[in-house]
Amino acid sequence: MQKAKRHKRKRPKKAEKAAKKAEHRSLPAQNELVSQEDDVSAGKYGNLPLIRSDPSAIRRHFTYLKELDKSVANKTVWVRARLHTARARGKQCFVVLRQREFTVQVLVNVSDSVSKSMVKFSSNITKESIVDIEARVVEVPSGVAGCSQQEVELVASQIWVVSASVPQLPLQIEDACRPDKPEDEEGLNIRVNQDTRLDNRVLDLRTPTSQAIFRLEAGVCRLFREILTNRGFVEIHTPKIIPAASEGELMYLLSVTSKAQFLEQRTPNTHRHLTEFTGLDLEMAFQYHYHEVMLTIGDLFTEMFKGLRDQYHTETAIVGQQFPAEPFTFLEPPLVLQYPQARKMLAEAGVEIGEEEDLSTPAEKLLGRLIKAKYDTDFYILDKYPLAVRPFYTMPDPQNSRISNSYDMFMRGEEILSGAQRIHDPELLTERAKFHNIDITKIASYIDAFKYGCPPHAGGGIGLERVVMLYLGLDNVRKTSMFPRDPKRVTP
Amino acid sequence: MQKAKRHKRKRPKKAEKAAKKAEHRSLPAQNELVSQEDDVSAGKYGNLPLIRSDPSAIRRHFTYLKELDKSVANKTVWVRARLHTARARGKQCFVVLRQREFTVQVLVNVSDSVSKSMVKFSSNITKESIVDIEARVVEVPSGVAGCSQQEVELVASQIWVVSASVPQLPLQIEDACRPDKPEDEEGLNIRVNQDTRLDNRVLDLRTPTSQAIFRLEAGVCRLFREILTNRGFVEIHTPKIIPAASEGELMYLLSVTSKAQFLEQRTPNTHRHLTEFTGLDLEMAFQYHYHEVMLTIGDLFTEMFKGLRDQYHTETAIVGQQFPAEPFTFLEPPLVLQYPQARKMLAEAGVEIGEEEDLSTPAEKLLGRLIKAKYDTDFYILDKYPLAVRPFYTMPDPQNSRISNSYDMFMRGEEILSGAQRIHDPELLTERAKFHNIDITKIASYIDAFKYGCPPHAGGGIGLERVVMLYLGLDNVRKTSMFPRDPKRVTP
Repeated sequence: MQKAKRHKRKRPKKAEKAAKKAEHRSLPAQNELVSQEDDVSAGKYGNLPLIRSDPSAIRRHFTYLKELDKSVANKTVWVRARLHTARARGKQCFVVLRQREFTVQVLVNVSDSVSKSMVKFSSNITKESIVDIEARVVEVPSGVAGCSQQEVELVASQIWVVSASVPQLPLQIEDACRPDKPEDEEGLNIRVNQDTRLDNRVLDLRTPTSQAIFRLEAGVCRLFREILTNRGFVEIHTPKIIPAASEGELMYLLSVTSKAQFLEQRTPNTHRHLTEFTGLDLEMAFQYHYHEVMLTIGDLFTEMFKGLRDQYHTETAIVGQQFPAEPFTFLEPPLVLQYPQARKMLAEAGVEIGEEEDLSTPAEKLLGRLIKAKYDTDFYILDKYPLAVRPFYTMPDPQNSRISNSYDMFMRGEEILSGAQRIHDPELLTERAKFHNIDITKIASYIDAFKYGCPPHAGGGIGLERVVMLYLGLDNVRKTSMFPRDPKRVTP
Repeated sequence: MQKAKRHKRKRPKKAEKAAKKAEHRSLPAQNELVSQEDDVSAGKYGNLPLIRSDPSAIRRHFTYLKELDKSVANKTVWVRARLHTARARGKQCFVVLRQREFTVQVLVNVSDSVSKSMVKFSSNITKESIVDIEARVVEVPSGVAGCSQQEVELVASQIWVVSASVPQLPLQIEDACRPDKPEDEEGLNIRVNQDTRLDNRVLDLRTPTSQAIFRLEAGVCRLFREILTNRGFVEIHTPKIIPAASEGELMYLLSVTSKAQFLEQRTPNTHRHLTEFTGLDLEMAFQYHYHEVMLTIGDLFTEMFKGLRDQYHTETAIVGQQFPAEPFTFLEPPLVLQYPQARKMLAEAGVEIGEEEDLSTPAEKLLGRLIKAKYDTDFYILDKYPLAVRPFYTMPDPQNSRISNSYDMFMRGEEILSGAQRIHDPELLTERAKFHNIDITKIASYIDAFKYGCPPHAGGGIGLERVVMLYLGLDNVRKTSMFPRDPKRVTP
């Protein structure tokens, strides 16, 4: 389907008309069969009544598209799938069916048992409709171009519409699938822009790329949980409802697995920010040094990257066909740099960062390129940030009050985790909050939580959508959020 | 620890005073060692400086409490744990340490190397403080009463406070652990009430019961995901931010894994309702009949119950010691009853429910008892609810317009899942929304989602906290929500 050479985008006027007719037919009150009595194919095609779980309905065994290869050649099968395209050519109609990332070609051919009306009906079915087809599996030794199932095609004997799509799609799935390559001159003009995709996310999610992205995203969640569960972590769920007076930055305490950052005016509207994201957060008590935790998280990433590399290469390849990217690289154990080392590397490249200054986004990206060139890794840990640029609950370094026990982790030069040793002493916490001009009365319950004995601990929060975006080398975090929210978008 | 016979609740006045002193000592600016130079134990006890990840700090290997049995008898170990209780008796101090659900007894005994001052210091450490103890493991052939580790006790040679608790605890952990048995006359008077527990949730979460509840809850999540992933489901994350004008009842579309139901005035404040809960939701396309989905969900529950029974019997037993309950029973395959059957059973028990009337909570509970008596199962499915009591997007029955293709699932007579075939036809959906007087313009994007071909589908939403509450036979859903939210509580 990624190639789809045989299927042109332009819709003939005739088909347009017919499609409108098909839309009309989709009304549930008009589930009449369209075949006529003098039709040899009568009762072999038409619109099925709306499936309402009628106990008297016919039951059939359906074959999945991915199972269609030469091992089932000459068998007769039923399939239920989406009509990807339909194209009439004389007495034939070429239909391409789609199911998840799989596509197969179906031939509807005038014959002793297939009437002209049935071929016409087939060619008029609107794209994206769900259809039930009975067909014989026929081997195609030369291969079927443009379909995932290349060994066989189907020769239809029945074709029924289960759920008709309206004829006018706000975007064409073929266009939404078009590879994002600079040299693709034609493609540039008919690519689907991001807003159109997001406005019509239910269609955009049907592309093989979207399917692969969200299967990989589910994989990141699974790997994250499996790895940590095996290490004795316990998954917890924390409230999203917090008192209106709370400081937003306290949410880390309340977080794990899924966190809604509330819509704020200051939220930046960029390719890498969402007003809502899925947070995979972890907190861990340590014995003597927060590096025990930092390196545990580093190893977690190494294991996740290995899991993605070994178990999700198909999904990665599908996404790469549409959005080409360099394969993601990582070192084992991960590279850990100190903040001053990063400043030095940037200074040598002509970018001066003050001792107590944070890295700007361009500086982070430059650093990513410098580290990639020097160490050949897309993942690294930056340790010992200036205290001045971290939240009040960050533990200051024991020897230098201007630096802190905190770290960020990066993928392809973009931050995907921010973490630190948290202050576990209520007195020091109060002192640091006051220094930050935070109203102590508003965070009393947070401070009180440390009054009854608390082990030293550290942790961090991972932005799920960013991890997936950067692993795949995508350019926008909206591609990896199923229904993204940003300051300009709260629907669909 | 569940018994804790040797440890009285009353705190002697002397200890009170000393504890205040200890609180004073916990200030980070005063991490002085309290031992004197003429003390034989000098340098063997005191308050450790705040752990700020000092690179020069001593590093020790700690043994977990659960590892302390006769296999390590006569060895010298370091442990870091919470001081559960400390009680002086002459030249001895009996300390009980706690770590997760494990407890061990420590003896601090005046000897050649242990001074009176060290014993006094030990007996004055406030409950719930984190301590590091060096000790020899000594076998106790007669067994240690009231501790999980009964084969051995520890004889301390060093004792250091890592993080001191304030002396005045808002609740005593021993009280919070007290079994909830009607015959326990003494217990009734000193049981900790629910609000005190929730106001001080960081302490309440330290009881073995709480620890077991949330480990089992994590298990439900893990089993839910593993079972569905194995069946080809894909985990997705959906937005919590939705336009203010949206109908609350549409959230099901947006849901999976973690759902915040927004605070509404009509939200009931009962033992079984929370304004925020964790939703484990699933939606599944089916071929011909929604029972394909309903029975898939039923099997999911059977597999989850088996997983809990086989993998979480320890946790279940711990909770059962404090909150006794009948073991949870289930049938395989699960019992499915039709709504009219339920009405008949209730009518025979003297409770009349109208044909198009919903079950009240008392009726549901009575039904649960009747079904338990007749079928010996705590889990069952009630199918074919009246259409009138279900949301507008519920598919009506194909043969009887007064009933619907919907079902609820119950544990111990309380609903834990509500589900249905969803209308997948935009025309019928619009018609049903209008019948419910819903403003079509406000749900346009929801209706539009079905215009581009949609397979028939059904699903349901599981309330995680309720499942855990009812599996364990607990009386209040606040026990199974880590930081519960209800109309009167948005903290801590």
